[in-house]
Amino acid sequence: MPLTCSVFIATSSDGFIARADDNIDWLENPAYTMSATEDFGYAEFTGSIDTLVMGRRSFEKVLTFANWPYDKLPVVVLSSRTIHIPAELQTKVRNIHQEPQELVAQLETEGRRHLYIDGGETIRRFLRAGLIADMTITRLPVLLGEGIPLFGAIDHDIRLSHEWTRTFGNGFVQTKYRIVREARGDRREEDGLGRRP
Amino acid sequence: MPLTCSVFIATSSDGFIARADDNIDWLENPAYTMSATEDFGYAEFTGSIDTLVMGRRSFEKVLTFANWPYDKLPVVVLSSRTIHIPAELQTKVRNIHQEPQELVAQLETEGRRHLYIDGGETIRRFLRAGLIADMTITRLPVLLGEGIPLFGAIDHDIRLSHEWTRTFGNGFVQTKYRIVREARGDRREEDGLGRRP
Repeated sequence: MPLTCSVFIATSSDGFIARADDNIDWLENPAYTMSATEDFGYAEFTGSIDTLVMGRRSFEKVLTFANWPYDKLPVVVLSSRTIHIPAELQTKVRNIHQEPQELVAQLETEGRRHLYIDGGETIRRFLRAGLIADMTITRLPVLLGEGIPLFGAIDHDIRLSHEWTRTFGNGFVQTKYRIVREARGDRREEDGLGRRP
Repeated sequence: MPLTCSVFIATSSDGFIARADDNIDWLENPAYTMSATEDFGYAEFTGSIDTLVMGRRSFEKVLTFANWPYDKLPVVVLSSRTIHIPAELQTKVRNIHQEPQELVAQLETEGRRHLYIDGGETIRRFLRAGLIADMTITRLPVLLGEGIPLFGAIDHDIRLSHEWTRTFGNGFVQTKYRIVREARGDRREEDGLGRRP
């Protein structure tokens, strides 16, 4: 079985993962607090993955948190710039500058099986490269109006397969989609039926 | 009870209601066909409303359909331009050039109770004016990458209250939200806690 790339992310109902200045205050609204043990499936998800891949911008955001939240999970920061990795994270974090396809091939040779792809730009790059297998999206009951979007431009429609949806008492709506990988022939046929010229 | 403004609309999973050229081919994908009687709640919704308000762009799109889809339902086309209303629709459609607040006040004096607000720009204008009571959003399992978005810029976060979510066998996820109307005092207090400066 080849390596799998998954997304697990929260968005506003208008599709933003952060405000324009990377602020995620709106995620931490006390109105969303449930029981102390409710983690919206996060522990189950991260228990299934062996490597976290994020962009520089997400990494720098996480560095502002009081604690490094990923314990011993290996983290790859995908960045064309050299990033500063604090001494205490040197054994956990590495900076790689590769295209998504190359990175996946490399991590596969290292024996990695399941990547957690995080951060807007990184997710969009992996989606465009056809590398995302599934996405668990948790929509929060708020409109922000502007910010960093989860999704962006793609060169053709991407069909999704709905796996399940569950709702929480605080108004969160969580849906798991698989990405439908279309054979080139299918895609061409569909082009003739209803796509943009 | 004051007049109520509701939204009932389908979007792609990345939040578009049409392609950039107004094309809605992706809504009509044969893969989404369910039983002949499944209308995803549309008849129940339209049965509860007495006036449809849409923008010029939506109206011109609907005119390209083989049949006028709204039967005897009164339609208001909100447009600052004079629009051409075909002769057979003169008794059903009128063109009004007003701000949302004024239009709502006028329709209220006419005895209207429940408006169906349709079309991206019109929905966004009503949302910004604080006039939308609830939104039923049906997300289709597809990413388009670009197009006409449902949501747009707003001058403060809009909190939503989750009413219900239901899923369909074809992958549609339908959620009804109410718009939370915040007292000015509440909003100011929240500003201090976590909003943009």
